Amino acid sequence: MDYPNDQAPGAPIRSGIPEHGRIPKYYAVKARIAVLLDELGEGGLLPTERELAQRHGVARETVRQALRELLLEGRLRRQGRGTVVAGPKLEQPLSLASYTEGVRRQGRRPGRHLIGLDRFPCPEALAAEIAVERGEPVWHLERVLLADDERVGLESTYVGVDRVPDLDTEFDPDSSFYAYLRDRLRIAFGDADERIETVLATPREALLIGTPPALPMLLIHRLSRDAEGRPLERVRTLFRGDRFSFSTRLRGEERS
Amino acid sequence: MDYPNDQAPGAPIRSGIPEHGRIPKYYAVKARIAVLLDELGEGGLLPTERELAQRHGVARETVRQALRELLLEGRLRRQGRGTVVAGPKLEQPLSLASYTEGVRRQGRRPGRHLIGLDRFPCPEALAAEIAVERGEPVWHLERVLLADDERVGLESTYVGVDRVPDLDTEFDPDSSFYAYLRDRLRIAFGDADERIETVLATPREALLIGTPPALPMLLIHRLSRDAEGRPLERVRTLFRGDRFSFSTRLRGEERS
Repeated sequence: MDYPNDQAPGAPIRSGIPEHGRIPKYYAVKARIAVLLDELGEGGLLPTERELAQRHGVARETVRQALRELLLEGRLRRQGRGTVVAGPKLEQPLSLASYTEGVRRQGRRPGRHLIGLDRFPCPEALAAEIAVERGEPVWHLERVLLADDERVGLESTYVGVDRVPDLDTEFDPDSSFYAYLRDRLRIAFGDADERIETVLATPREALLIGTPPALPMLLIHRLSRDAEGRPLERVRTLFRGDRFSFSTRLRGEERS
Repeated sequence: MDYPNDQAPGAPIRSGIPEHGRIPKYYAVKARIAVLLDELGEGGLLPTERELAQRHGVARETVRQALRELLLEGRLRRQGRGTVVAGPKLEQPLSLASYTEGVRRQGRRPGRHLIGLDRFPCPEALAAEIAVERGEPVWHLERVLLADDERVGLESTYVGVDRVPDLDTEFDPDSSFYAYLRDRLRIAFGDADERIETVLATPREALLIGTPPALPMLLIHRLSRDAEGRPLERVRTLFRGDRFSFSTRLRGEERS
């Protein structure tokens, strides 16, 4: 039987190699390097491209393509001038808790770096989402998200100026916006709708987050309401797809 | 102010173009084609590569790279020999409801195509997840997921043979496994843990689903328990990242 006995249930069947048909040469090399990564373990130093090319009897460009995919998938990461085996992806809960709390729960230190805080007249698409009149002033708060000083995401928060009039003077952009709403303005969250998808990093996003351009990212759209059910904010958060996964617990059928 | 008034809050800021610094030529073309897609609307036929190259004064290879990213992101799709503007991504709820129900709610016809049903001794990693003794028999049910006859995903379900002894003779693999558990075996779901991440399609997966290889996919890992809290199944479901998004409603903070 060709079902491998030690197949991890989360891994692709047959290491992704079709039962019939040919696979690209780079992929055969990638599958063999993936086995090597398991042997090396987290933090293990990968042999150089040249050594890998010699070992597998292929051109360096073939090795390079295999490594590119392993990097995009977060199996490898650059460290100094070498390449090492990456640890598992961070697992962030899908919950109303803030980014800050989610990162802390994993024993990492959350941080933010302000890109900009702008005030502008609410455009039509946003007006419908946060129940602000078109043309009324809204804030756009844009921040890079950090975990242990590593840049891992980029977040845009849109909120009506009437809800948080002193955001520009009162709020420390390196702190949690949710803690500010709760502690200073006594605004409690009621619920939120989230939608998660995968997109490619744009050049601007790649530059700000420090990723390769066109890296697959996880994009979370959030529309949240306060405890009275009034729309509160529209958030667009981009997370490095090679560093993050999101988890949730689903409850019994009647509530789904 | 350079903040565009009609910026959709879900779109990348500045169309992804950095405030400072250079962008690759293909990306400038991509951003201009993206505007054209909005004008053409869903189903609109894209001009040929040659026409686009002439219009933007660039090489056809530059246009090809722009179109490749727009295809990977699900903004475009191939239709016959042409390329048309794709519709929005399907929005599947993150819930204990089955794939079948989720697709039906969107007015689409769900389907499945059996790849294989194997019975094999439970490997160690799986044993820990579904509380089956290592070496005891487990089923691996692998199916392609369809929506209106379009292949959109690939699902592997692992379940102990003692829970569903007659899966190979009693169960119609084109039907809902959850409906079978509920209606035939009176097994009710209690809850499940899900984890969502982005991965690249392997050659085998790309072949089975009919996607370009290395297309970014959404991978959902599920561990579900029955109403008594006993582990029931381990599922690995891969969805086309260009065709799917997942939505969820988050409730108030105290429950998160």
